[in-house]
Amino acid sequence: MAEETTTEDAREDDRYGLGRERVLAILEAAEAQDAATVNELMEPLHPADIADLLEQVDSSERAAILKVHEIDGETLSELDESIREEVFDLLSPGVLSDAVRELESDDVVDIIEDLEDDQQKAILDALEDNDRLAVQQALSYPEYSAGRLMQREVVAGPEHWTVGEAIDWLRSREDLPDDFYHVTLVDPRYHPVGNVTLGKILGHRRDVKLKDIAEDSFRTIEATEKEADVAYAFNQYHLISAPVVDEDGKLVGVITIDDAMIVLEEEAEEDILRLAGVGDESSLSDKVVATTRRRAPWLAVNLATAIIASLVISLFEDTIAQYVALAVLMPIVASMGGNAGTQSLTVAVRAIATKDLTGSNVLRVIRREVLVGTVNGVIFAVVMGLVGWVWFGAPMLGAVIAAAMIINLVVAGLAGTVIPVVLDRLKVDPALASGTFVTTVTDVVGFFAFLGLAAVVLL
Amino acid sequence: MAEETTTEDAREDDRYGLGRERVLAILEAAEAQDAATVNELMEPLHPADIADLLEQVDSSERAAILKVHEIDGETLSELDESIREEVFDLLSPGVLSDAVRELESDDVVDIIEDLEDDQQKAILDALEDNDRLAVQQALSYPEYSAGRLMQREVVAGPEHWTVGEAIDWLRSREDLPDDFYHVTLVDPRYHPVGNVTLGKILGHRRDVKLKDIAEDSFRTIEATEKEADVAYAFNQYHLISAPVVDEDGKLVGVITIDDAMIVLEEEAEEDILRLAGVGDESSLSDKVVATTRRRAPWLAVNLATAIIASLVISLFEDTIAQYVALAVLMPIVASMGGNAGTQSLTVAVRAIATKDLTGSNVLRVIRREVLVGTVNGVIFAVVMGLVGWVWFGAPMLGAVIAAAMIINLVVAGLAGTVIPVVLDRLKVDPALASGTFVTTVTDVVGFFAFLGLAAVVLL
Repeated sequence: MAEETTTEDAREDDRYGLGRERVLAILEAAEAQDAATVNELMEPLHPADIADLLEQVDSSERAAILKVHEIDGETLSELDESIREEVFDLLSPGVLSDAVRELESDDVVDIIEDLEDDQQKAILDALEDNDRLAVQQALSYPEYSAGRLMQREVVAGPEHWTVGEAIDWLRSREDLPDDFYHVTLVDPRYHPVGNVTLGKILGHRRDVKLKDIAEDSFRTIEATEKEADVAYAFNQYHLISAPVVDEDGKLVGVITIDDAMIVLEEEAEEDILRLAGVGDESSLSDKVVATTRRRAPWLAVNLATAIIASLVISLFEDTIAQYVALAVLMPIVASMGGNAGTQSLTVAVRAIATKDLTGSNVLRVIRREVLVGTVNGVIFAVVMGLVGWVWFGAPMLGAVIAAAMIINLVVAGLAGTVIPVVLDRLKVDPALASGTFVTTVTDVVGFFAFLGLAAVVLL
Repeated sequence: MAEETTTEDAREDDRYGLGRERVLAILEAAEAQDAATVNELMEPLHPADIADLLEQVDSSERAAILKVHEIDGETLSELDESIREEVFDLLSPGVLSDAVRELESDDVVDIIEDLEDDQQKAILDALEDNDRLAVQQALSYPEYSAGRLMQREVVAGPEHWTVGEAIDWLRSREDLPDDFYHVTLVDPRYHPVGNVTLGKILGHRRDVKLKDIAEDSFRTIEATEKEADVAYAFNQYHLISAPVVDEDGKLVGVITIDDAMIVLEEEAEEDILRLAGVGDESSLSDKVVATTRRRAPWLAVNLATAIIASLVISLFEDTIAQYVALAVLMPIVASMGGNAGTQSLTVAVRAIATKDLTGSNVLRVIRREVLVGTVNGVIFAVVMGLVGWVWFGAPMLGAVIAAAMIINLVVAGLAGTVIPVVLDRLKVDPALASGTFVTTVTDVVGFFAFLGLAAVVLL
């Protein structure tokens, strides 16, 4: 009876995502290897939610679920990389090949590209000949290129077609892709010359020429273009699908907005994680060792910069020994500089990523950041000057910390903008490296300005 | 002749975005108030690029361009909020009302919702009666809700229709929306019951029933739902468009993937900026005063936490006075803790945003983060222990810093996960507030552990 109630509750689930009730009920049934209940509970779930479920549980629970539940192709393609290999090893060859055969070529490419050679071979062998060829051709394009992202199934017709001819042809085809949004018009050399939305085809009479109802703005994408640029173009120009061409300008595939949306989210995610020094950590299902291995290098870099800052402090050991209040206050100047620098660099890094910070406005932005640093510097100089004065009863100590604060916040605004711009020019991802450089600068300048001024003024 | 070359070069532009050459040529012509050249140079630009151009130049340049170039509706709707009011004030009432009348209702809503009352009224007055009504109805939904995001122009038909009936009806309509991807099937009470993609309609014979070719998975969105949840659903379930219903379940609008994509990007952007303590800074075109006003509160919070850390240090003034090496090394422990904490909290904040961190796996994730903190703690304890020993020739100093490092990195992993989870449960955006709490914890624990152990062990 209690079991029954749980299953009932599980059906009254969150509209989005996986409810805790359902997850617990599935795990309980999986542990008991009760296939009927597991499958009944999983049946209403979207493949994306099943993939999330598999990511959220631990290895032994995953194995228990997969013993009684046959995974399908779409769920496979939704699975996070970090557990894909593990899941593949759990599947029987029959289940794996059934699942893979359901997928379109771009999804197979996405699954296969990060696998070990033997797993890759197993999947390629499971495909039919023409699908295998399509996947192998896609894999011949560089990683993270439009060629890897595109579907090869295109819907295209000659530019002289009428609405009626297009509809008759579409009805006669057995193998239309699941999702398509345009009929692409091609010239006799199979070069795309225009895009007609399906809405326009449906809204016009049979004798209307397709080229008369083609979209005003039309863009093609080169197969070798970077996927980040493709995502940018979709977002900037509100594209819904765009034809992909090879180096001769021939139509070879199509990219649709749902693929671009995934790339756009991955790019933003990558920037967030890189800014935080988490490398390209992909998921919560990563193991402790893998996570430590990804994060330790960034902590090592931070340790090196922290030691540089300590070397600066050690120049002033005698000063600190005579005036211990300096040791108490010095982290404040460095911390404020680090924070202000992070503010500037985050804005700069994102503006570079979204192509809002360009050669045309870089000087204006640098000037703005320096001015903001100056204004904030003055505000917090006054505050900290008073705090330092009152706390230690020494007006000159207040003056020193105030001066150091202004210097460091101006430097923070300057470094926070110039460093990402320079890194970008040098083709280094500014999200990856800016933080370290900027905080090194603000630590060194902060300690040096505060302790140096103190050594001159107070002693 | 030189002028001619510049204009030529400008045409050979970047495929995406605005080339520097073109921007300079436009600014030069605008300064000379040469309307023909400005319009010739701007003619090939997409409205999104024109909006970017207006954002990248300064106020006087914007005014010069808008004096000779008539802005259209799409460009208006692409403009960043930060300069919208300024641009609106520059436009003549005639240009403004022409521009606004071109737009669909959801775009007008997007433009109008952040404007001052008098500007809002001017735009509403410019609209035709039924458009004005549609905009006013949309504005009656809460900000950031699906009701604000949706288009009210829907393409819907009864569930008993055949492909042929749908096509005949679509052909007879004069007012089809520019972009639509489904015909939504509705029951007699106008409740949506299914979605048929246009591709399926085009690919089937006239006598096929629409309900037999409707999509397997079908989701409706409530008008009061939060736009962030809508964007999540589009991304998670690969939706292309989804019907929006009111509280009675009646169809009132449709949301398309391009709108969801914009929200998804805004949400990620917001998280990035909030994590960096930049509030909701919207753009590079913000003025110095506005930018300072947004950032200063975060620096003030940071100052408060830095002062708390200083108070901890001041407890140990006597210890530091006797052993100045402590002042040199103490920022290292705090800095490493801050970095490790930021790594953990960034991963947690994003996992919460993408609904990957849930009640089902929160304990597992906390355990993982603590273990990662422990392993990294041991690694960097060994490194810093040796550095401290060698640098100051004092093995016990090395032991103290090593122990403090382990303590602080374990605490960082714990605080970096628990704090965002707790804030989320308390309905506070974890991206906004976690950073301050976590670095306060790691600063306090870092200084206290290091200086406290030193006071006990070394003196």
